[in-house]
Amino acid sequence: MKLFTVGPVEMYSDTLNVASKQLPYFRTKEFSDIVLDIQEKFLKLLKAPQESKLILLTASGTGAMECAVMNGTCSKDKILIINGGGFGRRFCEICRIHHLNYECLNLKFGESLNEDKLMKFSGKGITKLLVNVHETSTGQLYDLQMIGNFCKENNISLIVDAVSSFLVDYIDMEKMNVDMIFTGSQKALALSPGLACIAINPKMERFIMENNVESLYFDLKPYLVNMKRGQTPFTPAVGVILELKDRLDNLYNYGIDFIVAEHKNKADYFRNEIIKLGLTLPNYPLSNGLTPIIFTNGKAYETFLEIKEKYDMMLTPNGGELADKVLRVGHMGNLTKEDYDNLIKCLKEVL
Amino acid sequence: MKLFTVGPVEMYSDTLNVASKQLPYFRTKEFSDIVLDIQEKFLKLLKAPQESKLILLTASGTGAMECAVMNGTCSKDKILIINGGGFGRRFCEICRIHHLNYECLNLKFGESLNEDKLMKFSGKGITKLLVNVHETSTGQLYDLQMIGNFCKENNISLIVDAVSSFLVDYIDMEKMNVDMIFTGSQKALALSPGLACIAINPKMERFIMENNVESLYFDLKPYLVNMKRGQTPFTPAVGVILELKDRLDNLYNYGIDFIVAEHKNKADYFRNEIIKLGLTLPNYPLSNGLTPIIFTNGKAYETFLEIKEKYDMMLTPNGGELADKVLRVGHMGNLTKEDYDNLIKCLKEVL
Repeated sequence: MKLFTVGPVEMYSDTLNVASKQLPYFRTKEFSDIVLDIQEKFLKLLKAPQESKLILLTASGTGAMECAVMNGTCSKDKILIINGGGFGRRFCEICRIHHLNYECLNLKFGESLNEDKLMKFSGKGITKLLVNVHETSTGQLYDLQMIGNFCKENNISLIVDAVSSFLVDYIDMEKMNVDMIFTGSQKALALSPGLACIAINPKMERFIMENNVESLYFDLKPYLVNMKRGQTPFTPAVGVILELKDRLDNLYNYGIDFIVAEHKNKADYFRNEIIKLGLTLPNYPLSNGLTPIIFTNGKAYETFLEIKEKYDMMLTPNGGELADKVLRVGHMGNLTKEDYDNLIKCLKEVL
Repeated sequence: MKLFTVGPVEMYSDTLNVASKQLPYFRTKEFSDIVLDIQEKFLKLLKAPQESKLILLTASGTGAMECAVMNGTCSKDKILIINGGGFGRRFCEICRIHHLNYECLNLKFGESLNEDKLMKFSGKGITKLLVNVHETSTGQLYDLQMIGNFCKENNISLIVDAVSSFLVDYIDMEKMNVDMIFTGSQKALALSPGLACIAINPKMERFIMENNVESLYFDLKPYLVNMKRGQTPFTPAVGVILELKDRLDNLYNYGIDFIVAEHKNKADYFRNEIIKLGLTLPNYPLSNGLTPIIFTNGKAYETFLEIKEKYDMMLTPNGGELADKVLRVGHMGNLTKEDYDNLIKCLKEVL
């Protein structure tokens, strides 16, 4: 089964090799050194400002979303959520559950985010902005530089869900004024699921260290204190951390520009072929992480099933109201031009 | 490095073989079937009553502790915590953070739990009891049947942290009146860390479905709803779930009595040899999961370091006030009589 999913994705043989080994005990200097090295490389790939910190949280991406909101905001904040799909809605739900003061910039399916829409919230006392930079349910990529500029002008702290965007889209934490950003292990990192990585700049660290969080597991203060020596307060997903170390060592040699360009090449190649097939892509800007194919005939889910059963290829179906309308093809993980050629051949046959 | 730790522990070659394979996408019938099979086998190993449920939570054991308290108790409850060490204190901290009404049955180091101590809380309006049945910081095993009887007589719901007790100590959820019980993947299951397993009986399920939990990630209601079809609300630790499936298939053939007896044999063998060496064991009842060696000379941590550096064997040091006093030797995971013979030889040389 070839995975064109958005997590877990096709893993690299190096990762599987790491995963096949006996795990070490982790309360040691040796493991601390690994964690500190991960922090350094991860922050460099994000172009994080000096003195930024990384937190390794054993949880799904949704755990990281909730943890980010709980630590990065407080009851005094006025929060703006860019809500353009399933994951924007999830941010709204988290804020509702935690009784936070929030409003939404709602985007209907197919609608792009632009400066005019953002500017309506200028001068309205917003203090925090939450955005899924790549709204994975639709594939829309928001202009993070534009959002970051808006936040800077309005003195807003910016919290970014980059779960399906880290490594595939260009992110510069410093230049884009990002205060907190997080991803999950099973996306473009192509590791086992179960580990979330949360990066914060010094301003956000100061906020977190003063903030009261009513949770033991999700309170980031002890994570920050433990990270000084490369440790976590609770037993982490040791296996995924070792996979991450191996992967970052590799990625670090290439540099983020090269890595993003590689993903863009794959996405562009596939999209060109898709258009040749007469299929429809959305008009909004797309992440390099996945291609959403619009099925005007309402046969998105049917096509997903057929490709899975007949050709052993796993695309990513949508849930809810987009289930029959949008079928997503991932560009994360160990996928080659040949894999896309095969997929296009199958799509041709099915359509 | 040979691990006599309490997690991660020495893993089995079958587990490493599973871990070495490409992960599948999980929103499929095939994966659902795996999860449902895990639920069935896991509950049988716990002797759970009919219609009990299993929840797979992607988190450390501490995440499961907090999740259990958040879902299994509410502000109307009067909670009793058996607090005999580091993990008892952690339950207290969780209750304090969540503004719950709790009191503690405190045990000093070396002090056993007995019926007299429990009975002082009889007729006091206690509605929930929290216990780490094996208090991993000291190795004390509490008498779960005694606690369960006390709970039944007093109409108390019993929530059990069996993180380091599942598979090594005898647990019968039905007979011992346990309403909720949980463990972690990296303990006696000997899997990668990152997955917690929470079992609940029908009474606890009804309580949870009515309870208001101010969390998205830790609210068990959607987990219970999704589990009906063998799914989780958020991307789970797919890799650890596949390891769990493989391990349960294996354990299930032996049955829980055999598995517990095997751990007891290992623990008894080691303890006999330790006593022959003139070392001291505590007077309180011990779990089969680990042996705490008392260093009356205050050299526990020094001995840990020496055995690690000289012999490539990793014992489990204590933190805090017990650091120099207690050194723990684990009996969980893939350890043989020969491994213990080697360790005893080293201990002889060091002492």
